[in-house]
Amino acid sequence: MRDFLPEDVRRREHVIVVIKRVYERYGFEPLETPAVENLETLLGKYGDEGNQLIYKILKRGEGEASGEADLALRYDLTVPLARVVAHHHAKLPRLFKRYQIQPVWRADRPARGRFREFYQCDVDALGSTSPVIEAELCAAVADAMVELGFAEFSIRLNHRQLLTSMLNASGITETLHGAALVALDKEDKIGVDGVRQELAQRGVLPESARSLFAAIGALRDRAPVSGLDETGVAALANLDAIETMAKGTQAEARLRRDPSLARGLSYYTGAIMEVNVADLAGSLGGGGRYDNLVGMFSGQQIPACGFSLGLERILVVMSERGMFPASLATTPADVMVAVFDAAGLPHAMRVAGQMREAGLRVLVYPDADKIGKQIKYADGRGIPFVALLGADEIAKGDVTVKNLAAQSQQTHSQSAAGAAILEALKNRG
Amino acid sequence: MRDFLPEDVRRREHVIVVIKRVYERYGFEPLETPAVENLETLLGKYGDEGNQLIYKILKRGEGEASGEADLALRYDLTVPLARVVAHHHAKLPRLFKRYQIQPVWRADRPARGRFREFYQCDVDALGSTSPVIEAELCAAVADAMVELGFAEFSIRLNHRQLLTSMLNASGITETLHGAALVALDKEDKIGVDGVRQELAQRGVLPESARSLFAAIGALRDRAPVSGLDETGVAALANLDAIETMAKGTQAEARLRRDPSLARGLSYYTGAIMEVNVADLAGSLGGGGRYDNLVGMFSGQQIPACGFSLGLERILVVMSERGMFPASLATTPADVMVAVFDAAGLPHAMRVAGQMREAGLRVLVYPDADKIGKQIKYADGRGIPFVALLGADEIAKGDVTVKNLAAQSQQTHSQSAAGAAILEALKNRG
Repeated sequence: MRDFLPEDVRRREHVIVVIKRVYERYGFEPLETPAVENLETLLGKYGDEGNQLIYKILKRGEGEASGEADLALRYDLTVPLARVVAHHHAKLPRLFKRYQIQPVWRADRPARGRFREFYQCDVDALGSTSPVIEAELCAAVADAMVELGFAEFSIRLNHRQLLTSMLNASGITETLHGAALVALDKEDKIGVDGVRQELAQRGVLPESARSLFAAIGALRDRAPVSGLDETGVAALANLDAIETMAKGTQAEARLRRDPSLARGLSYYTGAIMEVNVADLAGSLGGGGRYDNLVGMFSGQQIPACGFSLGLERILVVMSERGMFPASLATTPADVMVAVFDAAGLPHAMRVAGQMREAGLRVLVYPDADKIGKQIKYADGRGIPFVALLGADEIAKGDVTVKNLAAQSQQTHSQSAAGAAILEALKNRG
Repeated sequence: MRDFLPEDVRRREHVIVVIKRVYERYGFEPLETPAVENLETLLGKYGDEGNQLIYKILKRGEGEASGEADLALRYDLTVPLARVVAHHHAKLPRLFKRYQIQPVWRADRPARGRFREFYQCDVDALGSTSPVIEAELCAAVADAMVELGFAEFSIRLNHRQLLTSMLNASGITETLHGAALVALDKEDKIGVDGVRQELAQRGVLPESARSLFAAIGALRDRAPVSGLDETGVAALANLDAIETMAKGTQAEARLRRDPSLARGLSYYTGAIMEVNVADLAGSLGGGGRYDNLVGMFSGQQIPACGFSLGLERILVVMSERGMFPASLATTPADVMVAVFDAAGLPHAMRVAGQMREAGLRVLVYPDADKIGKQIKYADGRGIPFVALLGADEIAKGDVTVKNLAAQSQQTHSQSAAGAAILEALKNRG
């Protein structure tokens, strides 16, 4: 887990602000949940591997000595959302569109762009099975990507029920479906031959695998696939409907059917999506429809669909590709006030106050160090202006403003200096 | 621990945005640290009671069965700051001014405005012993309070070394200083007589208590205090200097010397502050100078001083007193697009896209429910406009915009509807 120094925080906030603005434009509202959930809320929702990666919290007080855990750190934002919807059902609208940008924790081995504490930017809609939902999620994610500066990316689209139908049509028994999906999901990493090997290892007959790959190939070519059952046909129609709804949105040109896309999580029940950028292995995020998860908490089935972007992966790519705007503040202040001796400090405070009222970010150098040392501090921190208060300036109610980059200086009345610096900042762009 | 539904999040964000803006105006920069710290980083920093309130995290993997904890949830933002400054010392400026607004966790008994997960809004400056630091912290906090809408509040000011000097002058042995400070700190809650009783219970002689109260009384009247040692006299001079530096700032009129203010935490070494609002028991925040804490991590002494505002208490008071601006968004969208049948949905998506480009927050009703049901949904959610797309409108490239409050409607071309709604929203104020 990492500390975020000021520059890191500013970059993170830039991305979060863009994503929030886009999500709100689509009518999604903010939700926040506690970092800590009851352990039993989380157990059994993420598969065996997931259970192992949950950070568990010791009972407090008397119970502490027992070594037992009753609480746990949030593992994703989807299960807490399902709990919230089940729990606060009466207070929430029938159609509930929420976004949530908060950290989650997994006791995983850290790797490039993968951390034990990381932020997810989730956006979900509950209460409707309409393909409008999937289309809007894809459109919102595509808008966010474009506004972050990503030019080339795609949103891969598939359907869990289409996968199930293909697996059935290929003669793969239901007990092997989970294993087959896990293998398929690795095509990115291990290639088609790798998937074929893994399917064989997991007990899928060669002729079934052949038939599965034939079906995937046919779907890729948009050719008819033989043997799909009713559910599979309906799934294909659902994908068509999603694409129709996405017409005219930023998602239209990005959507790409990928019949081998499987997604790891077990709770998906319908369309699944994943967003990829050019020249980057792995995805920046993904999502899908999960119509049964809320029911696990309340017994009441509430259809749901969502998309999650990974903040850390987005930041890694944006940093590597120099995608942050030059306007992103990188200095602690617009101007630093410096004095020649301690008697000047109360005056520095007053002048700083005036400049803040004018709209500037002002740092008062707090000690009467040698003036060269003070200016060096401002320069080292990238603060563009230094306001100097010598005995002369103080006596006259003036202040001398030094432009460090231009190596020029000008004396103003204290009341006018703020406006002058603001003007100079604007002209610098 | 609580879930924050959209209205809660918006109110929380409003307060956070105001506080951040003010802190940045003073040259403070954002810092974020992980929720999870090594357990040993936290142990021994908050006193015995604090140790008990720390949420401890079980070791993962093989170690889990041992029932041992090696990590813990952040308990405050000051100890993590000291760790960061000790750890990242080479990367940080000599004078480091940071703010940090993040949750902390304490396994405490919840009460009104007190929760197990709560946000602290901390602002600290490291690297200077100048009274400018204390004055700027008080000025920034006062600015934030005023911008949040607080009219009547005070910032109580005292000094740990003045307290120590008074305790010594009153003949209270050093081993009783901690207990005496804890007792003094309760004057708000238990009154002077209560403090007197508690001092007696803790072993302070009646004549010492009498002498202590006399000294406090004299300080309150700004009369000379007998028996103060050099440190005490220097502490008084430091308080004078802080008040001088605060002249002309928003803090000037709010600062109030309170010689009985003690503050609970043990790490304070100099000035201590607390902010109180009229008609509210307890404080909204507090802080002080702690010149030795960073040294506990790095061995290198770095002077430091900070102020922490409690987000939850601020929110409770602002809610009770109706202090949130009317302009705070309370609706999920500016306009909802509704259709008469499923064939209209792709058109709804397109019109919504145009309106979003115009700058509106737009919710597409995703199902072709009865139009009355759709409008009822918009009305129930406070969405002021509904854009209706019937067969007629679609054929002509139009859209009918219904103003729910005015119960009026008007037909526009689809490309002009966004601007018309924006205009109408502006006129509503």
